[in-house]
This record gives sequence, C-alpha cells and structure tokens, in this order.
Amino acid sequence: MSLVLNREQLSEYLAHVFPQVERDFAIEEVDDSSITVRLKVEDRHLRPGGTVSGPSMFSLADVSVYALILALKGRQSLAVTTGCSMDFMRKPDGRADMIARCTLLKLGKTLAVGDVLMFSEGADKPVARATMTYSLPPAGSAAAAFG
Amino acid sequence: MSLVLNREQLSEYLAHVFPQVERDFAIEEVDDSSITVRLKVEDRHLRPGGTVSGPSMFSLADVSVYALILALKGRQSLAVTTGCSMDFMRKPDGRADMIARCTLLKLGKTLAVGDVLMFSEGADKPVARATMTYSLPPAGSAAAAFG
Amino acid sequence: MSLVLNREQLSEYLAHVFPQVERDFAIEEVDDSSITVRLKVEDRHLRPGGTVSGPSMFSLADVSVYALILALKGRQSLAVTTGCSMDFMRKPDGRADMIARCTLLKLGKTLAVGDVLMFSEGADKPVARATMTYSLPPAGSAAAAFG
Amino acid sequence: MSLVLNREQLSEYLAHVFPQVERDFAIEEVDDSSITVRLKVEDRHLRPGGTVSGPSMFSLADVSVYALILALKGRQSLAVTTGCSMDFMRKPDGRADMIARCTLLKLGKTLAVGDVLMFSEGADKPVARATMTYSLPPAGSAAAAFG
Repeated sequence: MSLVLNREQLSEYLAHVFPQVERDFAIEEVDDSSITVRLKVEDRHLRPGGTVSGPSMFSLADVSVYALILALKGRQSLAVTTGCSMDFMRKPDGRADMIARCTLLKLGKTLAVGDVLMFSEGADKPVARATMTYSLPPAGSAAAAFG
Repeated sequence: MSLVLNREQLSEYLAHVFPQVERDFAIEEVDDSSITVRLKVEDRHLRPGGTVSGPSMFSLADVSVYALILALKGRQSLAVTTGCSMDFMRKPDGRADMIARCTLLKLGKTLAVGDVLMFSEGADKPVARATMTYSLPPAGSAAAAFG
Repeated sequence: MSLVLNREQLSEYLAHVFPQVERDFAIEEVDDSSITVRLKVEDRHLRPGGTVSGPSMFSLADVSVYALILALKGRQSLAVTTGCSMDFMRKPDGRADMIARCTLLKLGKTLAVGDVLMFSEGADKPVARATMTYSLPPAGSAAAAFG
Repeated sequence: MSLVLNREQLSEYLAHVFPQVERDFAIEEVDDSSITVRLKVEDRHLRPGGTVSGPSMFSLADVSVYALILALKGRQSLAVTTGCSMDFMRKPDGRADMIARCTLLKLGKTLAVGDVLMFSEGADKPVARATMTYSLPPAGSAAAAFG
C-alpha cells in the first residue's frame, strides 16, 4: 500500500479539520506502514505530580492511528474509534515531549487496528502502549458509523 | 465495606488535589459499592462534529473509579492507573452532560478494577463502557507505583 | 427486541453446530437483554493448582455473547469475534461450575458488544469480567468477516 | 537482563509443571527480550470452519508471556494473569501451526506486561495480537496473588 498523503499534506489536512491537533501534535515521520507523532507537552497535558495525563496519552494514540489511516486512505476517509486498550507501564517525564510510534496491524474494508508505543523523548523504555480499533464506514455513508 | 468519605468530603478533597476536576466533574452519588459522576460537557470536551471526545470520556471513567477508591480507602490512598479498556458504542450527544455509573469489581490490597458505563444524560443506551485497573501501592510507599 | 430463539431452540441449535458446546456449557436462562450460561467444570478445564484455566473462561465468555446474539438475531446470523478484553480478579474454585451473566451493550447492524461477569457457582464476587466485540457481516456475505 | 533459563531448561521446566504445554507448544527461540513459541495445531485446537479457536490463541499468548517471564526470573517465580486484551484480525489457517512472537514491555517488581503477535506459519500478516498483564507476587508469598 502506498501513501496517499505525504507528511506535509497530512499535517496540513489535520490542521484544517482538527485545529487543536496542530497546537498539540506534530507528525514527525510517516511511511506506508508506520507513523511517528510528537505530543508537544505543555502544562495543560500534565496532572498533579508533573506527569503526562492519561487523557493526553489517549489523544496521542488516537491521533497517531487516525493520521496513519488518513495517510493511506486519503482525505475522504472516515474512521470512527470503536475501541481502545491501554497499558500504562512507567511514569512519563512531564518535562519531555512524548513520542508515539504507531503501526497498523490491519487496514481492512470496514475495520482498522493500530498499535502504538509511547515514549518520553530520549527514554528507551515505553511509558505506555495502546491498541486502537476503528470502524471504517464506506465513503459517503457516515450513517454506517457506530454500526 | 463502608464509606470513609461521603459525597461532600469526597468532592471537597478532589477539588483540593485536582482543581480541574471541580470545573469538569460533579460527584452525583456515592455509596459503598458504586458512584455516579457527571461530566459537565462544554465546548472544550467536544470534537469536530459536536460529539464528546474520546479523551473526555477517558477522563470521566478514570475520575469515576479513582473517586470511588478514594471514598472507600480514604485520603491517604494512592491509586496509579495501570490499564484501561474502552468500547465506544454510540455517538454521544454533545449538547448533553455525560453521566458515568461506576462499580468496583475488585478492591484488593494491591489491585483495583472498576467498571464504568457512560450515558448522554437522558438517554437509556450507553455511549461507552470502560474498565480501568489500578495499582494500589502500600500507604506511604509511592515507590511501589508502576511496580 | 424480542427473542428469535428461546432457551430450548438455542440449546438445540448450538449443540448442532458446535457439538463440543453441549458437553461443556448449558444455557441456564435467556431473555431479550441477557443470558446466563454455565460452564460444567471438569478436569480438562483446570490448570495446575486446581483453578479454572484462562482459556476456559475465554470460551465461556465467547459462547455466552455468541449465544445471546444468536437468540436475538436467529440461526442465519454470523458473528465473528474481533476483540476481547478480560480482567481476572479472583481465584476461581475448581470444584464449582462457573456461571456467566452476560448482557449486550450493543447489537448494531455491523457491530455487537457484550459484557460478561463470571462467578464460581455459589460465590457472590466475580472471578473475572470480559468484554467481547463481534463483527456482524450482512447475512449471506461471510466475505465481509474480518473486514 | 540476562536469561536465567535457556531454551532447553525452559522447555524442560514447563513440561514438568504443565504437562499439557509440552503436547501443545514448543519454545522455538528465547533471548533476553523476546520469545517465539509454536502452537502445534491439531484438530482439538480448531473450531467449526477449520480455523484455530480463540481459546487456543489465548493459551498461546498466555504461555508465551509466562514462559518469557520464567526464562528471565527463574523457576521460583510466580506470575498470575490479571488481564488480557486481544484483537482478532484475520482468519487463521487451520492447516498451519501458529507462531507467537512475544516481547516484554515491562518486567517490574510486581507487574509484568507482555505483547504478542500471532501468525499462521508462513504468512506475513498477523492473525491476532494480545497484551497480557501479570501480577508478580514476592517469591514465597503466593498469598499476594490476586491482591
């Protein structure tokens, strides 16, 4: 499968449809099987104790898989998050950005599954992992979402 | 097991340690086996399309289980989120608050498991479900977190 | 939604298509929103230490949700397990049967989600919980499975 | 971290404590960060339609992570499965063995998390993925399991 949107096109499109994505995230690299996304950690992503919050990591995982599906399927694609499983393994460093490395385990006609490892930048052991699943309604039929 | 903190004490304590909780959430009811928590939905909880965002639902689930553990174990308790699984089943109504109904399936010495159903207020079918797991370090030994 | 298959019809159909189901499981009760299924625990379901094995509990959860979908959708329905999350909370009693209480959180056109609590018979606290998700291909189009 | 048990020692020990493991599984490779385990697929692992059953894949994932923990921690180690999340992505080939490739994302004092990809032998796309979590009671204190 080859990329429909390259890194620049993908970043531009995401900034257009999800303005808050541009503020919080940066697409670092994307190829036809994986993507690397940065969460630009600021105070609003932290929780007491100075670690990156769970919801911020959820966002990072979700944006990463969603962006990779977009890059492969193109702008008209719709992907509705239907499931998520996450394990939180280490305390994230609140003074570092978080880096997500994501691969697609499946990109079928109606179902996509993405796997994400998240690291505090500069650390070699993952802070968290996530698997996100998506329903892919046929183009033009948003009605099928949450089918 | 009986409540160590009642609804008022729990709300006050959460507002003290997590100031943002007070803005976003309200403890509606709590007893010795369950809790009901409201997400006061505002624009910042929405994503394009006008539905409540996944990270907002993650927060709601996490706060609900965490608050119920606090109510049962008391202020000195530490609970570190170690895992989460969520299923998103219906489109939430962005104009309604979300209501989480949470029960604890286990509150052991070192492990807690909470189950959460989330509804758009006034609807009878759940928007999402979540199971959250926590590591409970011995009091006074935060070092054990992320054991 | 009303039942398409009652308890007897459901038991008979399962015994026909999955002969091993009859040996291991019994449908105790089924109505239009829930089902109770018994795992008839024997030595082959145990692991060293005399507790019911994880795979046996996976089977119990999967059979329970699958049977409830069948009861509601009828014999022609196809349901392909696409995901599972389980939490194991207490040691099961290897000398007791296991009882699963299952509800459907969603039964849509293309996606079903079932929630299962599992108990050692006679105990009041759950041994395990599971959420199982299924893809429901349109009748007659098995090709859509694993979409 | 270095291996406490090599492949031969690990296989021998597993055969001793879990006799059924020897019949169903073979440790193909193990090093200090990963393990490869074969499920020797036979009729008893199949379900109608000729595909490998979900419970068989659960077993494969669980045995793989458990064996890798044993290899790294040694024979006295206890690991109690506390959670599992699985995604089933493609139809397994019932005429081929299944190969699990497993890495440990965390091996802490009290918590281990393992990630598993499962393939029908000879295929390059995964049939299923699993994340398994374990509680690691202190040696000699099985009482802490299911803490």
